[in-house]
Amino acid sequence: MKTTRLEAFSDGVMAIIITIMVLELKAPEGVELAALKPLTPHFFGYILSFIYVGIYWNNHHHLFQAAQQVSGGILWANLHLLFWLSLFPFTTDWMGENALTPVPTAVYGFVLLMAAVAYQILEHTIIAKEGRDSLLARAVGKDWKARLSTACYFAAIPLAFLSAWISYALYFFAALLWLIPDPRIERKLENRKE
Amino acid sequence: MKTTRLEAFSDGVMAIIITIMVLELKAPEGVELAALKPLTPHFFGYILSFIYVGIYWNNHHHLFQAAQQVSGGILWANLHLLFWLSLFPFTTDWMGENALTPVPTAVYGFVLLMAAVAYQILEHTIIAKEGRDSLLARAVGKDWKARLSTACYFAAIPLAFLSAWISYALYFFAALLWLIPDPRIERKLENRKE
Amino acid sequence: MKTTRLEAFSDGVMAIIITIMVLELKAPEGVELAALKPLTPHFFGYILSFIYVGIYWNNHHHLFQAAQQVSGGILWANLHLLFWLSLFPFTTDWMGENALTPVPTAVYGFVLLMAAVAYQILEHTIIAKEGRDSLLARAVGKDWKARLSTACYFAAIPLAFLSAWISYALYFFAALLWLIPDPRIERKLENRKE
Amino acid sequence: MKTTRLEAFSDGVMAIIITIMVLELKAPEGVELAALKPLTPHFFGYILSFIYVGIYWNNHHHLFQAAQQVSGGILWANLHLLFWLSLFPFTTDWMGENALTPVPTAVYGFVLLMAAVAYQILEHTIIAKEGRDSLLARAVGKDWKARLSTACYFAAIPLAFLSAWISYALYFFAALLWLIPDPRIERKLENRKE
Repeated sequence: MKTTRLEAFSDGVMAIIITIMVLELKAPEGVELAALKPLTPHFFGYILSFIYVGIYWNNHHHLFQAAQQVSGGILWANLHLLFWLSLFPFTTDWMGENALTPVPTAVYGFVLLMAAVAYQILEHTIIAKEGRDSLLARAVGKDWKARLSTACYFAAIPLAFLSAWISYALYFFAALLWLIPDPRIERKLENRKE
Repeated sequence: MKTTRLEAFSDGVMAIIITIMVLELKAPEGVELAALKPLTPHFFGYILSFIYVGIYWNNHHHLFQAAQQVSGGILWANLHLLFWLSLFPFTTDWMGENALTPVPTAVYGFVLLMAAVAYQILEHTIIAKEGRDSLLARAVGKDWKARLSTACYFAAIPLAFLSAWISYALYFFAALLWLIPDPRIERKLENRKE
Repeated sequence: MKTTRLEAFSDGVMAIIITIMVLELKAPEGVELAALKPLTPHFFGYILSFIYVGIYWNNHHHLFQAAQQVSGGILWANLHLLFWLSLFPFTTDWMGENALTPVPTAVYGFVLLMAAVAYQILEHTIIAKEGRDSLLARAVGKDWKARLSTACYFAAIPLAFLSAWISYALYFFAALLWLIPDPRIERKLENRKE
Repeated sequence: MKTTRLEAFSDGVMAIIITIMVLELKAPEGVELAALKPLTPHFFGYILSFIYVGIYWNNHHHLFQAAQQVSGGILWANLHLLFWLSLFPFTTDWMGENALTPVPTAVYGFVLLMAAVAYQILEHTIIAKEGRDSLLARAVGKDWKARLSTACYFAAIPLAFLSAWISYALYFFAALLWLIPDPRIERKLENRKE
């Protein structure tokens, strides 16, 4: 089974997730610039979640370029990742409507954490299929980025009860980690071509 | 006519169905963890429907890998399946908002039943086109999974009036049946390659 | 310029149109079967519009199989068609909420009429590009189906003020005309292969 | 890395943006033609935004036909463009509900301006990758259309406080500029084939 249709379906789901989040940005009642002010936390939450879906799409793209074949296990590991990503609009909306409150901030982090775990399960399922000596296995190696960002989400959940600002900072920091494209897989792919 | 564009359109529709269901998960008013509690049945309904759309996408994927060509009849049998799948967000929402009530639980099962019937009509339309001796006809054979899950949905409709829990159990059981990927078609496809 | 990306974009738009219409089918307040009764006109409107989007997708599919190249004019004629199709959720919702009232029924017909006109503009734009002797020009020929269904929509607009039932009958009749796949283009395409 | 999946994802996002804007066109309460009247500004806003998303899809299509490869920078420049496009439903809705008020009109122009800037950043990122002597660099040349339309959006923001009509005129004028397909890239592509 080829990866094409799985990639197309995942692209579709991620394109919809990234776009429907804007439906929660309701047009305000007033017509002054001040009417936009209550939307500020919502708007920043939208940007953050937009970046995260962009990161997952980007990494997903890299991951399946290194993968050769799809098994039943990979299909379900992929749907499991999409499930957690599909909860982003819900947690973004709740956090956006209740800025600086601990529980919505922590729940946002919990869904980020579960998506990160789901991504790593998907990565391992693909490596298990491709083999320990495969291109992907060597490319991923010791994935310090995945570990560090997972640690950020994990820490942000209890820290939200201390101050929501700490959690926000951790979410932005973990996003920044990923904004830089992963040179490992790209380099390996280039090497293969040579 | 090739199957590519039909698959792309179906992928698009299923990607949207699986994603817009989350729009029914409205962010709660409160900011405590307890505020999420009334959403619990909704959330479980979302998981169940997510798995079902995932199953249909997965099986649809297998089905059209075995198919070679598309006729007018196949196009409409496919749209008929997509129609019943498109009602999942509606029935999921109604059942989620009214946990343990018999009618929404039964209506949820009715739409599952109709989708299962539509899938089998699609399968037969493709086999009729491909021929009784085709790869697909031999692969499907006596489809006990389809029969057993159809029987589950059929039984769950009246049993919802006895206890909604019985119906929920049947819906989860039928989903579990399909979570295991279908080795019949995969094996046949592999044999062909040899 | 190839037709692939235009087809993919159009598939995406039509997949979304056909799916978001279900968002207008709001889960009812009650939990009895009777609670679904007020949704009946909405539900029938949904079925009708679902069939129409299916018909347009089907015909669009056939049309671009016969087309070889895309020009700027074709791109905009295609977007013009998608514009009118994108109004289906709006008119379906208005007609569904106000069963048997003349104006929403007539407006529904007006959008059907404009979509039919847009489809024929697209067809002519493609023929103008492909040439009078092209496969498509010969396949379409004297398009009695398009003419008859356009006449139905045109007649249904004023007749809605006499009785909405007449208009509904015309909309269903015109849909039935198209449910039968177009053997002209299919036959020509098969001839070409020989 | 090839451009295919990036194009497919962008098509998906633009298809969703162009379609969900219609969800803001709520079916009116009344059943007379007069009930549609309050929707008029909304409807014109919808047409304008539909045309703009169509223009961006069209230009995006041309741009990536001239591009050969995708880098990490191009991926993020593309997501940045999609981000501003994704705000169109929000600004269209706000402007549509508050016709002739200065702030929503100016904010609509601001998002148009940012999308235009994002498009030009994407163009420059691709040219930087492809090289100054590439097909695209020569095709784009001195992009007077991009400059003139950007100037229109820039001017429309303060002018909205004088009269919203001036801004509307500028938005329509800038859209008209782009409705004519870009003959530069098309000509260059044709030359290449020869």
